[in-house]
Amino acid sequence: MLFHKVAIVGAGLIGGSLGAALRQRKLAGRVVGIGYRAVSLIQAQQRGCIDDFTLEMQEGVCDADLVVIGTPVSLVAEKAREMAPHLAPGCIVTDVASTKKQIVEQLDGMFGETARFVGSHPMAGSEKRGSEHSDPSMFDGALCILTRTGHTDPAAAARVAEMWHGVGMRTLSMPPEQHDHYVALASHVPHAVAACLVGIQDATSLQCAGSGFKDATRIAASDPELWRDIMLGNAAEVAGGIDMLIRELTDLRALIETGDEAALLDKLAEANRKRSSRYPD
Amino acid sequence: MLFHKVAIVGAGLIGGSLGAALRQRKLAGRVVGIGYRAVSLIQAQQRGCIDDFTLEMQEGVCDADLVVIGTPVSLVAEKAREMAPHLAPGCIVTDVASTKKQIVEQLDGMFGETARFVGSHPMAGSEKRGSEHSDPSMFDGALCILTRTGHTDPAAAARVAEMWHGVGMRTLSMPPEQHDHYVALASHVPHAVAACLVGIQDATSLQCAGSGFKDATRIAASDPELWRDIMLGNAAEVAGGIDMLIRELTDLRALIETGDEAALLDKLAEANRKRSSRYPD
Repeated sequence: MLFHKVAIVGAGLIGGSLGAALRQRKLAGRVVGIGYRAVSLIQAQQRGCIDDFTLEMQEGVCDADLVVIGTPVSLVAEKAREMAPHLAPGCIVTDVASTKKQIVEQLDGMFGETARFVGSHPMAGSEKRGSEHSDPSMFDGALCILTRTGHTDPAAAARVAEMWHGVGMRTLSMPPEQHDHYVALASHVPHAVAACLVGIQDATSLQCAGSGFKDATRIAASDPELWRDIMLGNAAEVAGGIDMLIRELTDLRALIETGDEAALLDKLAEANRKRSSRYPD
Repeated sequence: MLFHKVAIVGAGLIGGSLGAALRQRKLAGRVVGIGYRAVSLIQAQQRGCIDDFTLEMQEGVCDADLVVIGTPVSLVAEKAREMAPHLAPGCIVTDVASTKKQIVEQLDGMFGETARFVGSHPMAGSEKRGSEHSDPSMFDGALCILTRTGHTDPAAAARVAEMWHGVGMRTLSMPPEQHDHYVALASHVPHAVAACLVGIQDATSLQCAGSGFKDATRIAASDPELWRDIMLGNAAEVAGGIDMLIRELTDLRALIETGDEAALLDKLAEANRKRSSRYPD
Protein backbone atom coordinates (compact mmCIF):
# COMPACT_ATOMS: atom_id res chain seq x y z
CA MET A 1 0.00 0.00 0.00
CA LEU A 2 1.42 3.40 -0.99
CA PHE A 3 -1.09 5.70 0.71
CA HIS A 4 -3.50 5.24 3.58
CA LYS A 5 -6.16 7.57 2.24
CA VAL A 6 -6.30 9.10 -1.21
CA ALA A 7 -8.78 11.93 -1.76
CA ILE A 8 -9.78 12.57 -5.37
CA VAL A 9 -11.32 15.96 -6.06
CA GLY A 10 -13.30 15.48 -9.27
CA ALA A 11 -13.70 11.75 -9.87
CA GLY A 12 -14.39 12.05 -13.59
CA LEU A 13 -12.76 10.21 -16.47
CA ILE A 14 -9.16 10.52 -15.25
CA GLY A 15 -9.76 10.87 -11.51
CA GLY A 16 -12.24 8.00 -11.58
CA SER A 17 -9.92 5.76 -13.57
CA LEU A 18 -7.09 6.52 -11.17
CA GLY A 19 -9.27 5.72 -8.17
CA ALA A 20 -10.34 2.44 -9.74
CA ALA A 21 -6.74 1.53 -10.56
CA LEU A 22 -5.52 2.37 -7.03
CA ARG A 23 -8.30 0.29 -5.52
CA GLN A 24 -7.84 -2.63 -7.89
CA ARG A 25 -4.11 -2.77 -7.27
CA LYS A 26 -4.49 -2.20 -3.54
CA LEU A 27 -2.22 0.85 -3.62
CA ALA A 28 -4.49 2.88 -1.33
CA GLY A 29 -6.11 1.94 1.95
CA ARG A 30 -9.15 3.97 0.99
CA VAL A 31 -10.12 6.21 -1.92
CA VAL A 32 -12.53 9.03 -1.17
CA GLY A 33 -14.21 11.10 -3.87
CA ILE A 34 -14.89 14.80 -3.29
CA GLY A 35 -17.29 16.71 -5.50
CA TYR A 36 -20.33 18.92 -5.57
CA ARG A 37 -22.81 16.61 -7.30
CA ALA A 38 -23.83 13.57 -5.25
CA VAL A 39 -25.24 11.85 -8.34
CA SER A 40 -21.82 11.85 -10.06
CA LEU A 41 -20.12 10.57 -6.95
CA ILE A 42 -22.67 7.78 -6.47
CA GLN A 43 -22.05 6.78 -10.07
CA ALA A 44 -18.27 6.77 -9.48
CA GLN A 45 -18.76 4.69 -6.35
CA GLN A 46 -21.00 2.18 -8.11
CA ARG A 47 -18.40 1.81 -10.85
CA GLY A 48 -15.70 1.04 -8.28
CA CYS A 49 -13.76 4.26 -8.70
CA ILE A 50 -14.00 5.30 -5.03
CA ASP A 51 -14.75 3.62 -1.71
CA ASP A 52 -16.91 6.47 -0.51
CA PHE A 53 -17.44 10.17 -1.02
CA THR A 54 -18.25 13.50 0.53
CA LEU A 55 -19.44 16.87 -0.68
CA GLU A 56 -17.33 18.60 2.00
CA MET A 57 -13.76 19.48 1.05
CA GLN A 58 -12.61 19.66 4.67
CA GLU A 59 -14.02 16.25 5.57
CA GLY A 60 -12.56 14.71 2.41
CA VAL A 61 -8.99 15.95 2.62
CA CYS A 62 -8.38 16.33 6.38
CA ASP A 63 -6.78 12.92 6.96
CA ALA A 64 -5.62 12.13 3.42
CA ASP A 65 -1.93 11.52 2.77
CA LEU A 66 -2.48 12.08 -0.97
CA VAL A 67 -4.92 14.47 -2.63
CA VAL A 68 -5.40 14.26 -6.40
CA ILE A 69 -7.09 17.23 -8.06
CA GLY A 70 -8.85 15.63 -11.01
CA THR A 71 -10.80 18.67 -12.17
CA PRO A 72 -10.40 20.45 -15.50
CA VAL A 73 -7.47 22.86 -15.68
CA SER A 74 -9.57 25.95 -14.98
CA LEU A 75 -10.66 24.69 -11.53
CA VAL A 76 -7.37 23.37 -10.19
CA ALA A 77 -6.16 26.55 -8.44
CA GLU A 78 -9.59 27.23 -6.94
CA LYS A 79 -9.84 23.71 -5.52
CA ALA A 80 -6.29 23.93 -4.17
CA ARG A 81 -7.08 27.19 -2.36
CA GLU A 82 -10.22 25.65 -0.95
CA MET A 83 -8.43 22.61 0.48
CA ALA A 84 -5.27 24.42 1.67
CA PRO A 85 -6.41 25.21 5.26
CA HIS A 86 -7.59 21.63 5.82
CA LEU A 87 -4.67 19.53 4.60
CA ALA A 88 -2.90 17.21 7.03
CA PRO A 89 0.79 17.84 7.73
CA GLY A 90 2.96 15.95 5.24
CA CYS A 91 0.11 15.53 2.77
CA ILE A 92 1.07 15.39 -0.90
CA VAL A 93 -1.09 17.18 -3.48
CA THR A 94 -1.00 16.47 -7.20
CA ASP A 95 -3.23 17.22 -10.18
CA VAL A 96 -3.83 15.71 -13.61
CA ALA A 97 -4.23 18.84 -15.75
CA SER A 98 -2.94 19.07 -19.32
CA THR A 99 -1.15 22.42 -18.88
CA LYS A 100 1.36 22.95 -16.13
CA LYS A 101 3.15 26.32 -16.11
CA GLN A 102 0.22 28.41 -14.80
CA ILE A 103 -0.90 25.73 -12.35
CA VAL A 104 2.56 25.15 -10.92
CA GLU A 105 3.11 28.90 -10.52
CA GLN A 106 -0.12 29.09 -8.56
CA LEU A 107 0.26 25.94 -6.43
CA ASP A 108 4.02 25.91 -5.71
CA GLY A 109 4.25 27.21 -2.14
CA MET A 110 0.46 27.59 -1.74
CA PHE A 111 0.45 25.03 1.08
CA GLY A 112 3.29 26.58 3.09
CA GLU A 113 5.11 24.07 5.27
CA THR A 114 2.10 21.77 5.65
CA ALA A 115 1.66 20.00 2.34
CA ARG A 116 3.79 19.51 -0.76
CA PHE A 117 2.69 19.93 -4.36
CA VAL A 118 3.96 17.96 -7.36
CA GLY A 119 2.23 18.53 -10.70
CA SER A 120 1.26 15.49 -12.78
CA HIS A 121 0.05 15.13 -16.32
CA PRO A 122 -0.91 11.54 -17.08
CA MET A 123 -0.94 11.35 -20.91
CA ALA A 124 -3.94 9.07 -21.03
CA GLY A 125 -7.65 9.42 -21.48
CA SER A 126 -10.09 9.64 -24.33
CA GLU A 127 -12.47 12.11 -25.90
CA LYS A 128 -15.16 10.91 -23.49
CA ARG A 129 -15.79 12.43 -20.08
CA GLY A 130 -17.20 11.31 -16.74
CA SER A 131 -16.56 8.33 -14.48
CA GLU A 132 -18.99 6.24 -16.56
CA HIS A 133 -16.17 5.95 -19.11
CA SER A 134 -13.47 5.33 -16.49
CA ASP A 135 -11.10 2.46 -17.03
CA PRO A 136 -8.54 1.30 -14.46
CA SER A 137 -6.26 0.05 -17.27
CA MET A 138 -6.24 3.50 -18.92
CA PHE A 139 -2.75 4.27 -17.67
CA ASP A 140 -1.04 1.03 -18.71
CA GLY A 141 2.16 1.74 -20.59
CA ALA A 142 1.39 5.44 -21.07
CA LEU A 143 3.53 8.36 -19.97
CA CYS A 144 2.99 10.64 -16.98
CA ILE A 145 4.94 13.89 -16.88
CA LEU A 146 5.79 15.22 -13.42
CA THR A 147 6.76 18.83 -12.88
CA ARG A 148 10.06 19.77 -11.28
CA THR A 149 10.83 23.27 -9.98
CA GLY A 150 13.01 24.85 -7.32
CA HIS A 151 10.16 24.29 -4.86
CA THR A 152 9.63 20.60 -5.59
CA ASP A 153 10.26 18.27 -2.67
CA PRO A 154 12.23 15.27 -4.02
CA ALA A 155 10.65 12.81 -1.60
CA ALA A 156 7.15 13.91 -2.50
CA ALA A 157 8.00 13.74 -6.23
CA ALA A 158 9.33 10.21 -5.74
CA ARG A 159 6.11 9.10 -4.03
CA VAL A 160 3.90 10.63 -6.73
CA ALA A 161 6.04 8.90 -9.37
CA GLU A 162 5.69 5.64 -7.45
CA MET A 163 1.91 5.99 -7.54
CA TRP A 164 1.85 6.48 -11.32
CA HIS A 165 4.27 3.57 -11.75
CA GLY A 166 1.90 1.55 -9.58
CA VAL A 167 -0.97 2.08 -12.03
CA GLY A 168 1.24 1.16 -14.99
CA MET A 169 2.72 4.43 -16.24
CA ARG A 170 6.19 5.51 -17.21
CA THR A 171 7.17 8.88 -15.77
CA LEU A 172 9.31 11.77 -16.97
CA SER A 173 10.18 14.74 -14.81
CA MET A 174 10.71 18.20 -16.31
CA PRO A 175 10.21 21.92 -15.61
CA PRO A 176 6.60 23.00 -16.26
CA GLU A 177 7.65 25.33 -19.10
CA GLN A 178 9.22 22.40 -20.93
CA HIS A 179 6.14 20.30 -20.31
CA ASP A 180 3.94 22.96 -21.86
CA HIS A 181 6.17 23.23 -24.92
CA TYR A 182 6.38 19.52 -25.68
CA VAL A 183 2.76 18.81 -24.90
CA ALA A 184 1.64 21.70 -27.10
CA LEU A 185 3.38 19.96 -30.00
CA ALA A 186 2.30 16.42 -29.19
CA SER A 187 -1.22 17.02 -27.93
CA HIS A 188 -2.63 20.55 -28.01
CA VAL A 189 -1.74 21.35 -31.63
CA PRO A 190 -3.10 17.98 -32.82
CA HIS A 191 -6.38 18.84 -31.07
CA ALA A 192 -6.46 22.24 -32.77
CA VAL A 193 -5.75 20.65 -36.14
CA ALA A 194 -8.44 18.02 -35.71
CA ALA A 195 -11.02 20.76 -35.13
CA CYS A 196 -9.78 22.64 -38.21
CA LEU A 197 -9.83 19.48 -40.36
CA VAL A 198 -13.48 19.07 -39.45
CA GLY A 199 -13.97 22.80 -40.03
CA ILE A 200 -13.02 22.67 -43.73
CA GLN A 201 -15.53 19.92 -44.54
CA ASP A 202 -18.92 20.42 -46.12
CA ALA A 203 -21.83 17.97 -46.10
CA THR A 204 -20.65 16.06 -49.19
CA SER A 205 -16.99 15.82 -48.23
CA LEU A 206 -18.04 14.59 -44.79
CA GLN A 207 -20.01 11.85 -46.52
CA CYS A 208 -16.85 10.95 -48.46
CA ALA A 209 -14.79 10.59 -45.30
CA GLY A 210 -13.36 7.17 -44.54
CA SER A 211 -11.54 5.56 -41.65
CA GLY A 212 -8.47 7.79 -42.10
CA PHE A 213 -10.51 10.94 -41.52
CA LYS A 214 -12.38 9.28 -38.67
CA ASP A 215 -9.19 8.47 -36.78
CA ALA A 216 -7.48 11.75 -37.68
CA THR A 217 -10.38 13.73 -36.20
CA ARG A 218 -11.38 11.54 -33.24
CA ILE A 219 -10.00 14.15 -30.86
CA ALA A 220 -12.19 16.83 -32.48
CA ALA A 221 -14.99 15.13 -30.52
CA SER A 222 -13.28 16.09 -27.24
CA ASP A 223 -15.00 18.25 -24.66
CA PRO A 224 -14.99 21.83 -26.06
CA GLU A 225 -14.87 23.61 -22.69
CA LEU A 226 -12.02 21.48 -21.43
CA TRP A 227 -10.03 22.13 -24.61
CA ARG A 228 -10.81 25.84 -24.72
CA ASP A 229 -9.25 26.06 -21.26
CA ILE A 230 -6.25 23.93 -22.19
CA MET A 231 -5.54 25.99 -25.32
CA LEU A 232 -5.93 29.29 -23.50
CA GLY A 233 -3.93 27.98 -20.55
CA ASN A 234 -1.04 27.22 -22.87
CA ALA A 235 -1.71 29.93 -25.45
CA ALA A 236 1.84 30.98 -26.36
CA GLU A 237 3.08 27.44 -26.90
CA VAL A 238 -0.03 26.39 -28.81
CA ALA A 239 0.22 29.45 -31.06
CA GLY A 240 3.90 28.72 -31.63
CA GLY A 241 3.12 25.10 -32.48
CA ILE A 242 0.41 26.18 -34.94
CA ASP A 243 2.99 28.46 -36.59
CA MET A 244 5.36 25.52 -36.96
CA LEU A 245 2.58 23.43 -38.46
CA ILE A 246 1.59 26.16 -40.91
CA ARG A 247 5.23 26.35 -42.06
CA GLU A 248 5.28 22.56 -42.58
CA LEU A 249 2.01 22.69 -44.51
CA THR A 250 3.28 25.58 -46.62
CA ASP A 251 6.45 23.62 -47.46
CA LEU A 252 4.47 20.51 -48.35
CA ARG A 253 2.05 22.54 -50.44
CA ALA A 254 4.96 24.03 -52.43
CA LEU A 255 6.28 20.53 -53.21
CA ILE A 256 2.84 19.47 -54.41
CA GLU A 257 2.33 22.59 -56.51
CA THR A 258 5.73 22.41 -58.18
CA GLY A 259 5.43 18.64 -58.63
CA ASP A 260 8.70 17.97 -56.82
CA GLU A 261 8.35 14.18 -56.72
CA ALA A 262 11.65 13.43 -55.00
CA ALA A 263 11.32 15.99 -52.20
CA LEU A 264 7.66 15.11 -51.61
CA LEU A 265 8.54 11.41 -51.35
CA ASP A 266 11.35 12.28 -48.90
CA LYS A 267 9.00 14.29 -46.73
CA LEU A 268 6.30 11.59 -46.62
CA ALA A 269 8.86 8.83 -46.09
CA GLU A 270 10.49 10.78 -43.26
CA ALA A 271 7.12 11.25 -41.54
CA ASN A 272 6.42 7.55 -41.97
CA ARG A 273 9.82 6.61 -40.47
CA LYS A 274 9.51 9.06 -37.60
CA ARG A 275 6.04 7.89 -36.63
CA SER A 276 6.99 4.21 -36.99
CA SER A 277 9.96 4.79 -34.68
CA ARG A 278 7.45 5.88 -32.03
CA TYR A 279 4.78 3.29 -32.82
CA PRO A 280 6.57 0.25 -34.25
CA ASP A 281 3.45 -1.93 -34.53
CA MET B 1 -23.42 -14.44 -59.25
CA LEU B 2 -22.74 -11.02 -60.75
CA PHE B 3 -19.77 -11.84 -63.00
CA HIS B 4 -18.45 -15.06 -64.53
CA LYS B 5 -14.81 -14.13 -64.35
CA VAL B 6 -13.31 -11.18 -62.53
CA ALA B 7 -9.70 -10.32 -63.33
CA ILE B 8 -7.87 -8.26 -60.70
CA VAL B 9 -4.75 -6.50 -61.89
CA GLY B 10 -2.72 -5.88 -58.74
CA ALA B 11 -4.16 -8.05 -55.96
CA GLY B 12 -2.74 -5.99 -53.11
CA LEU B 13 -4.53 -4.59 -50.07
CA ILE B 14 -7.63 -3.34 -51.88
CA GLY B 15 -7.64 -5.64 -54.90
CA GLY B 16 -6.97 -8.65 -52.68
CA SER B 17 -9.69 -7.69 -50.22
CA LEU B 18 -12.14 -7.24 -53.08
CA GLY B 19 -11.24 -10.64 -54.54
CA ALA B 20 -11.70 -12.29 -51.17
CA ALA B 21 -15.05 -10.55 -50.64
CA LEU B 22 -16.31 -11.52 -54.13
CA ARG B 23 -15.28 -15.14 -53.56
CA GLN B 24 -16.69 -15.31 -50.04
CA ARG B 25 -20.05 -13.90 -51.15
CA LYS B 26 -20.08 -15.96 -54.33
CA LEU B 27 -20.46 -12.88 -56.50
CA ALA B 28 -17.94 -14.10 -59.09
CA GLY B 29 -17.63 -17.47 -60.78
CA ARG B 30 -13.88 -17.14 -60.69
CA VAL B 31 -11.41 -14.48 -59.55
CA VAL B 32 -8.08 -14.36 -61.37
CA GLY B 33 -5.12 -12.31 -60.18
CA ILE B 34 -2.79 -10.67 -62.70
CA GLY B 35 0.60 -9.34 -61.66
CA TYR B 36 4.29 -9.45 -62.36
CA ARG B 37 5.53 -11.11 -59.17
CA ALA B 38 4.49 -14.74 -58.78
CA VAL B 39 5.38 -14.69 -55.08
CA SER B 40 2.81 -11.95 -54.37
CA LEU B 41 0.16 -13.75 -56.36
CA ILE B 42 0.82 -17.07 -54.60
CA GLN B 43 0.44 -15.23 -51.31
CA ALA B 44 -2.86 -13.70 -52.47
CA GLN B 45 -4.07 -17.12 -53.58
CA GLN B 46 -3.11 -18.76 -50.28
CA ARG B 47 -5.01 -16.03 -48.42
CA GLY B 48 -8.12 -16.72 -50.47
CA CYS B 49 -8.08 -13.46 -52.43
CA ILE B 50 -8.02 -15.14 -55.85
CA ASP B 51 -8.81 -18.55 -57.32
CA ASP B 52 -5.77 -18.56 -59.56
CA PHE B 53 -3.37 -16.21 -61.24
CA THR B 54 -1.30 -15.44 -64.30
CA LEU B 55 1.64 -13.19 -65.12
CA GLU B 56 0.23 -12.66 -68.63
CA MET B 57 -2.18 -9.75 -69.09
CA GLN B 58 -3.73 -11.22 -72.23
CA GLU B 59 -4.40 -14.61 -70.64
CA GLY B 60 -5.84 -12.97 -67.54
CA VAL B 61 -8.27 -10.54 -69.12
CA CYS B 62 -9.27 -12.22 -72.38
CA ASP B 63 -12.44 -13.91 -71.11
CA ALA B 64 -13.18 -11.71 -68.08
CA ASP B 65 -16.50 -9.84 -67.91
CA LEU B 66 -15.07 -7.53 -65.22
CA VAL B 67 -11.51 -6.27 -64.89
CA VAL B 68 -10.54 -4.41 -61.72
CA ILE B 69 -7.32 -2.39 -61.88
CA GLY B 70 -6.11 -2.53 -58.29
CA THR B 71 -2.71 -0.90 -58.83
CA PRO B 72 -1.54 2.39 -57.36
CA VAL B 73 -2.79 5.48 -59.20
CA SER B 74 0.43 5.95 -61.18
CA LEU B 75 0.10 2.57 -62.93
CA VAL B 76 -3.60 2.58 -63.80
CA ALA B 77 -3.33 4.13 -67.29
CA GLU B 78 -0.36 1.96 -68.22
CA LYS B 79 -2.18 -1.23 -67.19
CA ALA B 80 -5.31 -0.11 -69.04
CA ARG B 81 -3.34 0.46 -72.26
CA GLU B 82 -1.69 -2.93 -71.85
CA MET B 83 -5.00 -4.77 -71.49
CA ALA B 84 -6.97 -2.79 -74.09
CA PRO B 85 -6.26 -5.00 -77.15
CA HIS B 86 -7.16 -8.17 -75.25
CA LEU B 87 -10.47 -7.29 -73.58
CA ALA B 88 -13.56 -9.32 -74.43
CA PRO B 89 -16.50 -7.48 -76.06
CA GLY B 90 -18.82 -6.11 -73.38
CA CYS B 91 -16.19 -6.32 -70.67
CA ILE B 92 -16.42 -3.72 -67.89
CA VAL B 93 -13.24 -2.16 -66.54
CA THR B 94 -13.00 -0.33 -63.24
CA ASP B 95 -10.20 0.79 -60.93
CA VAL B 96 -9.83 1.59 -57.24
CA ALA B 97 -7.54 4.63 -57.35
CA SER B 98 -7.88 7.54 -54.95
CA THR B 99 -7.78 10.28 -57.61
CA LYS B 100 -10.13 10.24 -60.54
CA LYS B 101 -9.92 13.24 -62.89
CA GLN B 102 -6.66 12.30 -64.61
CA ILE B 103 -7.49 8.60 -64.72
CA VAL B 104 -10.97 9.10 -66.15
CA GLU B 105 -9.61 11.49 -68.79
CA GLN B 106 -7.14 8.83 -69.84
CA LEU B 107 -9.42 5.79 -69.69
CA ASP B 108 -12.75 7.21 -70.94
CA GLY B 109 -12.92 6.01 -74.52
CA MET B 110 -9.60 4.11 -74.36
CA PHE B 111 -11.37 0.82 -75.05
CA GLY B 112 -13.36 2.02 -78.08
CA GLU B 113 -16.56 0.05 -78.63
CA THR B 114 -15.25 -3.14 -77.00
CA ALA B 115 -15.16 -2.47 -73.29
CA ARG B 116 -16.67 0.14 -70.96
CA PHE B 117 -14.88 1.99 -68.20
CA VAL B 118 -16.42 3.17 -64.91
CA GLY B 119 -14.06 4.66 -62.32
CA SER B 120 -14.40 3.52 -58.71
CA HIS B 121 -12.93 4.80 -55.50
CA PRO B 122 -13.79 2.53 -52.59
CA MET B 123 -13.16 4.68 -49.49
CA ALA B 124 -11.72 1.82 -47.48
CA GLY B 125 -8.33 0.44 -46.64
CA SER B 126 -5.65 1.08 -44.09
CA GLU B 127 -2.11 2.38 -43.88
CA LYS B 128 -0.88 -1.17 -44.56
CA ARG B 129 -0.19 -2.58 -48.00
CA GLY B 130 -0.18 -5.98 -49.68
CA SER B 131 -2.62 -8.89 -49.80
CA GLU B 132 -1.24 -10.16 -46.49
CA HIS B 133 -3.30 -7.41 -44.86
CA SER B 134 -6.38 -7.99 -47.02
CA ASP B 135 -9.73 -8.29 -45.32
CA PRO B 136 -12.95 -9.26 -47.13
CA SER B 137 -14.97 -7.23 -44.61
CA MET B 138 -12.97 -4.07 -45.37
CA PHE B 139 -15.76 -2.59 -47.47
CA ASP B 140 -18.63 -3.14 -45.01
CA GLY B 141 -20.65 0.02 -44.58
CA ALA B 142 -18.06 2.24 -46.27
CA LEU B 143 -18.61 4.49 -49.27
CA CYS B 144 -17.56 3.86 -52.85
CA ILE B 145 -17.58 6.82 -55.23
CA LEU B 146 -18.26 6.00 -58.88
CA THR B 147 -17.35 8.43 -61.63
CA ARG B 148 -19.96 9.71 -64.07
CA THR B 149 -19.08 11.50 -67.31
CA GLY B 150 -20.60 11.99 -70.74
CA HIS B 151 -18.91 8.75 -71.80
CA THR B 152 -20.19 6.62 -68.94
CA ASP B 153 -22.43 3.73 -69.95
CA PRO B 154 -25.34 3.65 -67.48
CA ALA B 155 -25.71 -0.14 -67.63
CA ALA B 156 -22.02 -0.65 -66.91
CA ALA B 157 -22.16 1.88 -64.07
CA ALA B 158 -25.15 0.05 -62.59
CA ARG B 159 -23.29 -3.28 -62.67
CA VAL B 160 -20.18 -1.82 -61.05
CA ALA B 161 -22.37 -0.25 -58.35
CA GLU B 162 -24.05 -3.62 -57.85
CA MET B 163 -20.67 -5.23 -57.28
CA TRP B 164 -19.70 -2.69 -54.60
CA HIS B 165 -23.12 -3.05 -52.97
CA GLY B 166 -22.54 -6.80 -53.02
CA VAL B 167 -19.40 -6.44 -50.90
CA GLY B 168 -21.19 -4.15 -48.45
CA MET B 169 -20.57 -0.62 -49.70
CA ARG B 170 -22.78 2.38 -50.22
CA THR B 171 -22.18 4.13 -53.53
CA LEU B 172 -22.31 7.73 -54.71
CA SER B 173 -21.95 8.73 -58.34
CA MET B 174 -20.38 12.07 -59.32
CA PRO B 175 -18.21 13.72 -61.99
CA PRO B 176 -14.50 12.97 -61.44
CA GLU B 177 -13.70 16.66 -60.82
CA GLN B 178 -16.17 16.71 -57.93
CA HIS B 179 -14.75 13.48 -56.58
CA ASP B 180 -11.27 14.95 -56.54
CA HIS B 181 -12.46 18.08 -54.74
CA TYR B 182 -14.37 16.32 -51.98
CA VAL B 183 -11.82 13.58 -51.49
CA ALA B 184 -9.01 16.14 -51.27
CA LEU B 185 -10.84 17.66 -48.30
CA ALA B 186 -11.85 14.41 -46.62
CA SER B 187 -8.82 12.26 -47.31
CA HIS B 188 -5.83 13.81 -49.09
CA VAL B 189 -5.51 16.93 -46.92
CA PRO B 190 -5.83 14.84 -43.72
CA HIS B 191 -2.96 12.68 -44.99
CA ALA B 192 -0.87 15.80 -45.70
CA VAL B 193 -1.64 17.16 -42.23
CA ALA B 194 -0.77 13.91 -40.51
CA ALA B 195 2.68 13.97 -42.12
CA CYS B 196 3.13 17.61 -41.05
CA LEU B 197 1.98 16.89 -37.48
CA VAL B 198 4.70 14.26 -37.28
CA GLY B 199 7.09 16.68 -38.96
CA ILE B 200 6.91 19.29 -36.17
CA GLN B 201 7.80 16.78 -33.42
CA ASP B 202 11.23 16.33 -31.88
CA ALA B 203 12.44 13.32 -29.90
CA THR B 204 11.06 14.55 -26.55
CA SER B 205 7.68 15.69 -27.83
CA LEU B 206 7.29 12.33 -29.61
CA GLN B 207 7.89 10.65 -26.26
CA CYS B 208 5.14 12.83 -24.77
CA ALA B 209 2.63 11.76 -27.41
CA GLY B 210 -0.44 9.89 -26.23
CA SER B 211 -3.31 8.08 -27.86
CA GLY B 212 -4.71 11.29 -29.41
CA PHE B 213 -1.52 11.89 -31.37
CA LYS B 214 -1.29 8.23 -32.26
CA ASP B 215 -4.74 8.18 -33.84
CA ALA B 216 -4.37 11.62 -35.41
CA THR B 217 -1.20 10.52 -37.21
CA ARG B 218 -1.99 6.89 -38.03
CA ILE B 219 -2.29 7.80 -41.71
CA ALA B 220 1.20 9.34 -41.62
CA ALA B 221 2.36 5.71 -41.62
CA SER B 222 0.79 5.21 -45.06
CA ASP B 223 2.86 4.15 -48.06
CA PRO B 224 4.90 7.25 -49.08
CA GLU B 225 5.08 6.39 -52.81
CA LEU B 226 1.37 5.75 -53.04
CA TRP B 227 0.61 9.05 -51.33
CA ARG B 228 3.16 11.05 -53.30
CA ASP B 229 1.31 9.90 -56.42
CA ILE B 230 -2.12 10.64 -54.98
CA MET B 231 -1.12 14.15 -53.89
CA LEU B 232 0.55 14.93 -57.22
CA GLY B 233 -2.33 13.35 -59.12
CA ASN B 234 -4.74 15.73 -57.39
CA ALA B 235 -2.33 18.61 -56.87
CA ALA B 236 -4.63 21.61 -57.44
CA GLU B 237 -7.37 20.32 -55.13
CA VAL B 238 -4.93 19.24 -52.43
CA ALA B 239 -3.18 22.63 -52.54
CA GLY B 240 -6.56 24.37 -52.34
CA GLY B 241 -7.56 22.21 -49.38
CA ILE B 242 -4.29 22.99 -47.60
CA ASP B 243 -5.00 26.69 -48.15
CA MET B 244 -8.43 26.26 -46.54
CA LEU B 245 -6.85 24.46 -43.61
CA ILE B 246 -4.18 27.12 -43.14
CA ARG B 247 -6.94 29.75 -43.02
CA GLU B 248 -8.81 27.73 -40.37
CA LEU B 249 -5.63 27.30 -38.34
CA THR B 250 -4.85 31.02 -38.64
CA ASP B 251 -8.35 31.89 -37.39
CA LEU B 252 -8.10 29.47 -34.49
CA ARG B 253 -4.62 30.77 -33.62
CA ALA B 254 -5.97 34.34 -33.48
CA LEU B 255 -8.71 33.30 -31.03
CA ILE B 256 -6.11 31.60 -28.83
CA GLU B 257 -3.71 34.54 -28.96
CA THR B 258 -6.37 37.14 -28.17
CA GLY B 259 -7.91 34.90 -25.51
CA ASP B 260 -11.35 35.05 -27.12
CA GLU B 261 -12.98 32.44 -24.87
CA ALA B 262 -16.46 32.61 -26.37
CA ALA B 263 -15.43 32.38 -30.03
CA LEU B 264 -12.90 29.63 -29.30
CA LEU B 265 -15.54 27.62 -27.46
CA ASP B 266 -17.92 28.11 -30.40
CA LYS B 267 -15.33 26.88 -32.86
CA LEU B 268 -14.44 23.78 -30.84
CA ALA B 269 -18.09 23.02 -30.08
CA GLU B 270 -19.00 23.39 -33.76
CA ALA B 271 -16.23 20.94 -34.77
CA ASN B 272 -17.43 18.53 -32.09
CA ARG B 273 -21.04 18.75 -33.33
CA LYS B 274 -20.08 18.42 -36.98
CA ARG B 275 -17.92 15.36 -36.40
CA SER B 276 -20.51 13.77 -34.10
CA SER B 277 -23.16 14.23 -36.79
CA ARG B 278 -20.99 12.06 -39.07
CA TYR B 279 -19.87 9.57 -36.40
CA PRO B 280 -22.64 9.46 -33.79
CA ASP B 281 -21.01 6.75 -31.64
